[in-house]
Amino acid sequence: MNVLPALSDQKSGQSRVVIEHVSPEIDGGRFPIKAIPGDVIAVEADIFADGHDYLSARLLYKHSHDTAWIEMAMTLIVNDRWGASFIAEKEGKYTYTIDAWVDHPASWQHEIHLKVADGQIITSELLAGAKYLDGMIERAGGRIEVKEEGKKGGKSKKKAEPVEESVDVRALLEMAALFRDESRYDEAVSVAESDQFTFYANRYPERQHVSRYAAELGVEVDRARAGFSTWYCLFPRSASRQEGIHGTFKDVEALLPRISGMGFDVLYLPPIHPIGTSHRKGKNNSVTCQPGEPGVPYGIGSPEGGHDAIHSELGTVDDFKHLIAIAANYGMEVAMDLAIQCSPDHPWATEHPEWFKKRPDGTIQYAENPPKKYQDIYPVYFETEDWENLWNELKRTLLVWASWGVRIVRVDNPHTKPFGFWEWVIAEVKQEYPDMLFLAEAFTRPKVMQQLGKLGYAQSYTYYTWRNSKYELEQYMTELTQTEMKYYYRPNFWPTTHDINPYSLQGGHEPQFLIRYFLAATLSSNYGIYGPSFELMEHVPFPNKEEYLNSEKYEIRLWDWDKTNKLTYLITLVNRIRHENKALQATNNITFCQVNDDAIMAYLKVSGDNRLLIVVNTDAYNRRAGVIQVPIWQLNIHPEQSYGVHDLLTGAYYTWQGEQNYVELDPYALPMHLFKIEV
Amino acid sequence: MNVLPALSDQKSGQSRVVIEHVSPEIDGGRFPIKAIPGDVIAVEADIFADGHDYLSARLLYKHSHDTAWIEMAMTLIVNDRWGASFIAEKEGKYTYTIDAWVDHPASWQHEIHLKVADGQIITSELLAGAKYLDGMIERAGGRIEVKEEGKKGGKSKKKAEPVEESVDVRALLEMAALFRDESRYDEAVSVAESDQFTFYANRYPERQHVSRYAAELGVEVDRARAGFSTWYCLFPRSASRQEGIHGTFKDVEALLPRISGMGFDVLYLPPIHPIGTSHRKGKNNSVTCQPGEPGVPYGIGSPEGGHDAIHSELGTVDDFKHLIAIAANYGMEVAMDLAIQCSPDHPWATEHPEWFKKRPDGTIQYAENPPKKYQDIYPVYFETEDWENLWNELKRTLLVWASWGVRIVRVDNPHTKPFGFWEWVIAEVKQEYPDMLFLAEAFTRPKVMQQLGKLGYAQSYTYYTWRNSKYELEQYMTELTQTEMKYYYRPNFWPTTHDINPYSLQGGHEPQFLIRYFLAATLSSNYGIYGPSFELMEHVPFPNKEEYLNSEKYEIRLWDWDKTNKLTYLITLVNRIRHENKALQATNNITFCQVNDDAIMAYLKVSGDNRLLIVVNTDAYNRRAGVIQVPIWQLNIHPEQSYGVHDLLTGAYYTWQGEQNYVELDPYALPMHLFKIEV
Repeated sequence: MNVLPALSDQKSGQSRVVIEHVSPEIDGGRFPIKAIPGDVIAVEADIFADGHDYLSARLLYKHSHDTAWIEMAMTLIVNDRWGASFIAEKEGKYTYTIDAWVDHPASWQHEIHLKVADGQIITSELLAGAKYLDGMIERAGGRIEVKEEGKKGGKSKKKAEPVEESVDVRALLEMAALFRDESRYDEAVSVAESDQFTFYANRYPERQHVSRYAAELGVEVDRARAGFSTWYCLFPRSASRQEGIHGTFKDVEALLPRISGMGFDVLYLPPIHPIGTSHRKGKNNSVTCQPGEPGVPYGIGSPEGGHDAIHSELGTVDDFKHLIAIAANYGMEVAMDLAIQCSPDHPWATEHPEWFKKRPDGTIQYAENPPKKYQDIYPVYFETEDWENLWNELKRTLLVWASWGVRIVRVDNPHTKPFGFWEWVIAEVKQEYPDMLFLAEAFTRPKVMQQLGKLGYAQSYTYYTWRNSKYELEQYMTELTQTEMKYYYRPNFWPTTHDINPYSLQGGHEPQFLIRYFLAATLSSNYGIYGPSFELMEHVPFPNKEEYLNSEKYEIRLWDWDKTNKLTYLITLVNRIRHENKALQATNNITFCQVNDDAIMAYLKVSGDNRLLIVVNTDAYNRRAGVIQVPIWQLNIHPEQSYGVHDLLTGAYYTWQGEQNYVELDPYALPMHLFKIEV
Repeated sequence: MNVLPALSDQKSGQSRVVIEHVSPEIDGGRFPIKAIPGDVIAVEADIFADGHDYLSARLLYKHSHDTAWIEMAMTLIVNDRWGASFIAEKEGKYTYTIDAWVDHPASWQHEIHLKVADGQIITSELLAGAKYLDGMIERAGGRIEVKEEGKKGGKSKKKAEPVEESVDVRALLEMAALFRDESRYDEAVSVAESDQFTFYANRYPERQHVSRYAAELGVEVDRARAGFSTWYCLFPRSASRQEGIHGTFKDVEALLPRISGMGFDVLYLPPIHPIGTSHRKGKNNSVTCQPGEPGVPYGIGSPEGGHDAIHSELGTVDDFKHLIAIAANYGMEVAMDLAIQCSPDHPWATEHPEWFKKRPDGTIQYAENPPKKYQDIYPVYFETEDWENLWNELKRTLLVWASWGVRIVRVDNPHTKPFGFWEWVIAEVKQEYPDMLFLAEAFTRPKVMQQLGKLGYAQSYTYYTWRNSKYELEQYMTELTQTEMKYYYRPNFWPTTHDINPYSLQGGHEPQFLIRYFLAATLSSNYGIYGPSFELMEHVPFPNKEEYLNSEKYEIRLWDWDKTNKLTYLITLVNRIRHENKALQATNNITFCQVNDDAIMAYLKVSGDNRLLIVVNTDAYNRRAGVIQVPIWQLNIHPEQSYGVHDLLTGAYYTWQGEQNYVELDPYALPMHLFKIEV
């Protein structure tokens, strides 16, 4: 509190400008904001000084590879709020801060205007102005040699002589001479009032007693896929087309034409490591396992190896690298799953027993969620005294994955491992692989999820899976895109996951699947589906749970990889539209429109010229109709001007006019429009 | 940005708790909040860790005279928000911060409950609990001597033996022994589940890998008058009762019985220093002055002296000290006026010409607000290279005033002097005189006024003078009392000042004066009036300005000090009510009530049992009626219960019931109620 400027600190005593409430700024600059290349970073701050002098302010920014700050002039918005922006062009880290100072030449010119308008003689003021010009000459590179000219009237008089001359220096010298020449008074007054004076004063500013904002704020610029990605989850062991045969990476390769053809660009695989046998779980999470059952991929580790090994039935490390290479040919990346937990057979259990919590009898503590016991899992004990080696081993594991070509990691339950670890390991890995992206699979309390976003996760799972009504969805989207979260939290929307079969879809009602899919794909630029299960509208739950019956977490499933239906058609179409329309490649560019129906949602997505109006009936059982209030003022459309709305899903074309326009959506036909606005 | 825990920093790697978004906290802890003795400081923070363990959090606070932190247990409010509070009992500075840690014993006990309820045997868990008890014994002062007892089964076994014993240590030792005694299993389980265990775990907490909030936040506790004061402004030179005679401090003393009798406790005097003669201004701010005109008290400095001297026609320094002493007998303080500007005759102009800005011809620059010129004033040049001596001289001046007995200083136009100076000089003066209070007379842009409040001003003028309608007043009060401003900005409401004759009062309409007075005195616990002028409802403006004709800034006025009227009656009554009702001695304790009339305002002020409902008709010209929605839920009044509202202004007593109650106010009778709620 209350850090006083020391009286001995010369600079602070004369500095008069306060810079505060900078935005964006996360937790006082503790965390960076996020961007992708090309994003405009709009910075604002309260900037003011005592008195009525004019101020100048500059936004300073630089990429971590730059040595010098780049400057942007800030302009006053209103009420002492100033703004400027810069473009985060390159991947990597930017920092930004603000300089501001009392702009004496600008105040001087302002007063000149007032005095001249009042008919005052400003000879004395022009001499003061010449002094400002002397300063500009010096800063323009025209070094001034000061010669003592002897004393006149008891005062020493100095004469400025430039040593080098540039175009600017010559112009400034002329102006200074003019200001000092009483015989050319009228000409001098006109130059003093001119834009030319303003121009040079801004080009060679005084910056006297400049105030620098106390913090340097950060921008983490990830590659473009961090902001726009379309995920497909499958279990490779279920990739076979033959009953009873364990799928392999080769089988997955065979599925790539279909999956990429549907428009997906991230193929996410649950853990592909050796699976433990001790206390191995059976079908439907049974505590006993029948001979031949494959176990749970999250029960990681066996004598074959741990997190840096590959389950041999899937293939070899080389096979996995081959899959990554083939996927790349299809424009797809392979995302791995980091689940920091071990089966009792994991090599760490014997090599590093100190990384696990001990019971009083000295045995390793298995996982519990009392009264439930999970004897097949040893949680890693992050409070271990040997935490440094543990952290380094986990970092090493990620670097091994990166060496295989993996650049996206989905992290299982990151909220049950310390925040400090994630902040450290993500930064460390990105030091070597700046293109690495991490997705946080945390379904927990809001502040915990936010913290993971702040400390480095490029993307995060969300509550979307449980937000169904129009009211809930609009509230949630507002929280994600209109609060501070928009700066650091990149949502990734999933209608279902391999862990979650939400109640809203357990009815297996096709329009509901269409709606839940479509909302995810158009509300969020990042979304994913739990592939074959979702496409086939799998919905039968494990009784009374939001989980699947016969989940492939516990068994190998045989999927019909050739089936197409209304949903797969919609997925393929919407993914194509997402690729063709920039407005769907960002999330924060959303504006909700008023609709006089409690189920019909309408939202505008705008990116430059690309303007989409999306309308969804969130009631999967009833035909709904309503009037949308289109924010034509935001679209620069005159109230009497007609405009076209072109449904990219059906090809239908409507001519609308004014704010109020009627829509009607039948869930059994198609419960949505995806309009492109054409003026 | 992005400060990573060094891997070598052992503590940070195991610390798991995040503490953020602490409230109150002004600008990241840059500034303290304000309080008066007895105020409850309610602190909240987001506190959370990874996983599902129980947490403990403590609010730590201390007075600057204390060496050790005092701790208050924080409790979870909702959604990871925790809270606790402490009382700022003494004047001076407090600091507070937060400790939080993962509470393993609490998590352990929670799991015990679940396992026991599930019928599990918890022998192993009891041994883990005994370890926690060992820790508590040690922290309770029962030093444990560890003896090697030889090896059994390859493991070394240790036995704990306490050296000293207190009641707590004995109880804990018994519990630990019980937990290790399998023969008393049932008893041990019951103790493990008991409140006794919880009690000791909280009394002797583990604090393992504790997280300390990054900042220590400040509370500036001023004396009570900072929070509750009633100001009266007069020009002592107009205190005489005889035409043409310059008033003196003795004349002021003669007025004290009347002024204190009306309930005022701060007597504020505009500058009382010698007045310059160069370019002295005449009556009504005329640039020429007739012989014998007294000049403007704000044109400070003459050969008689400057800011540390007294204008001789008012009396001597001893006379001024005498006035202060007599005022004290009446329970009043004398506030001086700090106007940092000089007449050309001020001693500084010759002794420290470097403290003023020079024109190119070497003469001192007089004040300008182009195109206007103020040749009678030299502004002090805070950007001078000699700023350290200037600052020290101003500090010395304030210390001279303090040595006379002055403990309240009203500062004229602080917003035209650097923020850094005020922060420094206020802190320096309070170092020697902690009871010194400063009032900022800044009528300027919001953020500038806020900054002055943050950096140390105990009280601040406000926009109240120009907030007239119900809507404006409710908006403004909400900004002052419901935003962050409530922590650092203490408003002082003035219906008029010697500089401001607001348009709303220029009609001289008596009900308007009653309303403007009453709102100031009941909305804000600190308020003031420009004494004789306001009482007598002076209102004739200087043409087209919000200033007074024949202002006593430029001439000596003869006031009728014996006159009483409806307004003086109301002032005397309201000041008495303010002293008798704690609810009027604070400002932030306000709740506005809905009224179905756009002119009638109703607000509840509550302090403990003291509950007032204030109703004002802000329309000074028309009788208004409406229905007030009394927030009886907040008052703990049942909807079917009747309650009395007792008008402390008139003695009238009404019996009300329920939320909706009718009021009618005639501005020509009395445009307000001041109800005490009596249940």
